[in-house]
Amino acid sequence: MNSDIALYTDHYELTMLSAALRDGTADRQCVFEVFGRRLPLGRRYGVVAGTGRIIEQLRDFTFTPEIVEWLRDRQVVDDRTADWLRRYRFSGDIDGYAEGELYFPNSPILTVSGTFAECVVLETFVLSVLNHDCAIASAAARMVTAARGRPLIEMGSRRTHEEAAVAAARSAYLAGFASTSNLAAGRRYGIPTAGTAAHAFTLLHDDERAAFASQVATFSKDTTLLVDTYDISQGIRNAVAVAGPDLGAIRIDSGDLSMLAQQSRDLLDELGATETRIVVSGDLDEYAIASLAAEPVDAYGAGTAVVVGSGAPTAGLVYKLVEVDGKPVVKRSENKATVGGRKTAVRRHKPTGTATEEIIVPQGSPEPRPHDRPLQRPYVRGGEIVPDLPTLEDSRELLRHNLISIPWEGLKLSQGEPTIPVVCQPASTKESG
Amino acid sequence: MNSDIALYTDHYELTMLSAALRDGTADRQCVFEVFGRRLPLGRRYGVVAGTGRIIEQLRDFTFTPEIVEWLRDRQVVDDRTADWLRRYRFSGDIDGYAEGELYFPNSPILTVSGTFAECVVLETFVLSVLNHDCAIASAAARMVTAARGRPLIEMGSRRTHEEAAVAAARSAYLAGFASTSNLAAGRRYGIPTAGTAAHAFTLLHDDERAAFASQVATFSKDTTLLVDTYDISQGIRNAVAVAGPDLGAIRIDSGDLSMLAQQSRDLLDELGATETRIVVSGDLDEYAIASLAAEPVDAYGAGTAVVVGSGAPTAGLVYKLVEVDGKPVVKRSENKATVGGRKTAVRRHKPTGTATEEIIVPQGSPEPRPHDRPLQRPYVRGGEIVPDLPTLEDSRELLRHNLISIPWEGLKLSQGEPTIPVVCQPASTKESG
Repeated sequence: MNSDIALYTDHYELTMLSAALRDGTADRQCVFEVFGRRLPLGRRYGVVAGTGRIIEQLRDFTFTPEIVEWLRDRQVVDDRTADWLRRYRFSGDIDGYAEGELYFPNSPILTVSGTFAECVVLETFVLSVLNHDCAIASAAARMVTAARGRPLIEMGSRRTHEEAAVAAARSAYLAGFASTSNLAAGRRYGIPTAGTAAHAFTLLHDDERAAFASQVATFSKDTTLLVDTYDISQGIRNAVAVAGPDLGAIRIDSGDLSMLAQQSRDLLDELGATETRIVVSGDLDEYAIASLAAEPVDAYGAGTAVVVGSGAPTAGLVYKLVEVDGKPVVKRSENKATVGGRKTAVRRHKPTGTATEEIIVPQGSPEPRPHDRPLQRPYVRGGEIVPDLPTLEDSRELLRHNLISIPWEGLKLSQGEPTIPVVCQPASTKESG
Repeated sequence: MNSDIALYTDHYELTMLSAALRDGTADRQCVFEVFGRRLPLGRRYGVVAGTGRIIEQLRDFTFTPEIVEWLRDRQVVDDRTADWLRRYRFSGDIDGYAEGELYFPNSPILTVSGTFAECVVLETFVLSVLNHDCAIASAAARMVTAARGRPLIEMGSRRTHEEAAVAAARSAYLAGFASTSNLAAGRRYGIPTAGTAAHAFTLLHDDERAAFASQVATFSKDTTLLVDTYDISQGIRNAVAVAGPDLGAIRIDSGDLSMLAQQSRDLLDELGATETRIVVSGDLDEYAIASLAAEPVDAYGAGTAVVVGSGAPTAGLVYKLVEVDGKPVVKRSENKATVGGRKTAVRRHKPTGTATEEIIVPQGSPEPRPHDRPLQRPYVRGGEIVPDLPTLEDSRELLRHNLISIPWEGLKLSQGEPTIPVVCQPASTKESG
């Protein structure tokens, strides 16, 4: 348990809490929704990720006596608020899109309802998790599409904050990556881990053959040998000389990967290593991966671009109060597309299963149509986590299915509009009556 | 203590370790250096940050029995390696640039020396911390320059991973921000925290005046009232009506901040609130801050742009083996600028104190000149953390001083070359003998 979770919180959440406890509004029943006003520039869909991490940490989101004392000493909160924080446990409801669901502008990804007090303190933590994890999963999903079925290894841990790296590995796996280099992610989430050697291992040894021989002796000829520390052709010759033609794979981490993949394939074949796979890495993003589609590449290692969201390092999601005591509220200065009230969301499909639009209805439900699919599911009821939540594998499978269900243009890497429109409709009179 | 620290590690560090333990190279004396081959596009300097976080977590970087068992069960490591990991404690040396020091391409920011085995397992963790923290501090320092002495509040926690947010707040403070919204950063690092209210607080109440009255009753008229939930002019009138002309500050979080700041100042003055400060926030980066220099703004709140490094979310630093058993090593396929061997770095200055260049010397020291300043300091000796390391306040002061010492063109926000050149020189014969 991380006892700091409740302090993953902006100072102003607690000042608002203090004032609301004092004036009696803290107990008003509220609904907060998480959504994005727009997708990152040029993106056509977002991928929901992180909800599982929120739920699994929710039971630890409590203010320990030490934390409360610190908040009181620093005069962040007054005595009344300190008492309230000591007793805090979220007792409301959380609903939301499943991880692996696609989202678009204004999709109500997460809905948190309860008293103002108990919901407002969750804002920063909830947004941190979703803004990070959705950004990574959304970028990673594009790389998976670009890889056209070839496996991807996530190896970006060193390019991002050490804990963010663990969450990034989880999001990338959810998005369809085959494995990660990150051992903490392997242990925490059961994600397959992968890795063999860096250039340092070759430099450590007296020569390249000595390094390769050591690696093969330890991990068998099925290992992956990194062949670009010195001369790549010589590296491949050394690799096959040491491991034999049944060598598992070579990895190339620099240079013009397109040309090198072809040359390496030819050389491996010439040396009889026709089954030896070629793994390429080195600043690969979705565009670089797509450009290698025709080359004899067997697997991709992607690092920096995954963990920084490939140009969109944050998802830009917000956590907005939309309902107080059953009445919709909205910030007047916002653009008119913003609508108050708790939303219900469904995705509408053609009979063939292709998604056509997302319907969101404030304070009610849409008139049911065949091939509609509800997008929200319960996560927490009265403070209790509902049983049988989807696993990471379930989410991975859901995303795979979702990416098949959207119109094919939506999978293009080029800039464009959101793949399907999100339409805000009034409630069906029958339902909202 | 976070027991996962030792798993902030790429799988391949442990496979290299296994092979090196098996073949006897694990005990070779090695030097690894952390440096960047280039600065992010258009940046003129980088700011070192994160070293303190590495050092404070180093004593917890141990492989617990549970972790070793997991690694063994998953066949990440063999029995010999498992035994070695159980006994692991770093026993080598760490030297580096102080936090708050500037860096340029090829500056040897951190030097880790010891056996191959004990140094290689630190790679991922060391890079994660430095790549994140340097990226944030480098972006934040530009915002501080752009703010020209006006205070900046870091409020980006919700836009980045929940733990990365804490480190980002630390880096921003190091770079000269006045405070953060992040309470965990306040508690962990003693950084001043700030925050008053969000739009949700106004929406919660029956009207804006009721919200303002509650906030003033709880926090006195010295608080900051958020005036843009509905109509800004009316919001300012309501704020002054409720708090009186001695109201501490107003905050504006949307719209054309340049125009709104001027109009708000005029209105506040007209209402007699001539001392009421104006805080602006809402997607501010260094360029937006610079563009507000002539406006009557008293403080800036910066969020997303800080925590995602304002276009450069990772510093691109690498951890390279440069020396084995006293001999320089280098990856042959790299560009020729890369030089093996442990480097010594000094910054050279004019008699006036202006920095002119950075000199790095492999396997020796530069010939001493007046006004040279050594850039590296010891952090760890024989596995023991050296006493009296700089505090966060020291680092903040060092950076402030450093930004005064570089040529003024180096502080321009526009794209350009690194502010001072980094020159690699052979060792002075006198010194390297």
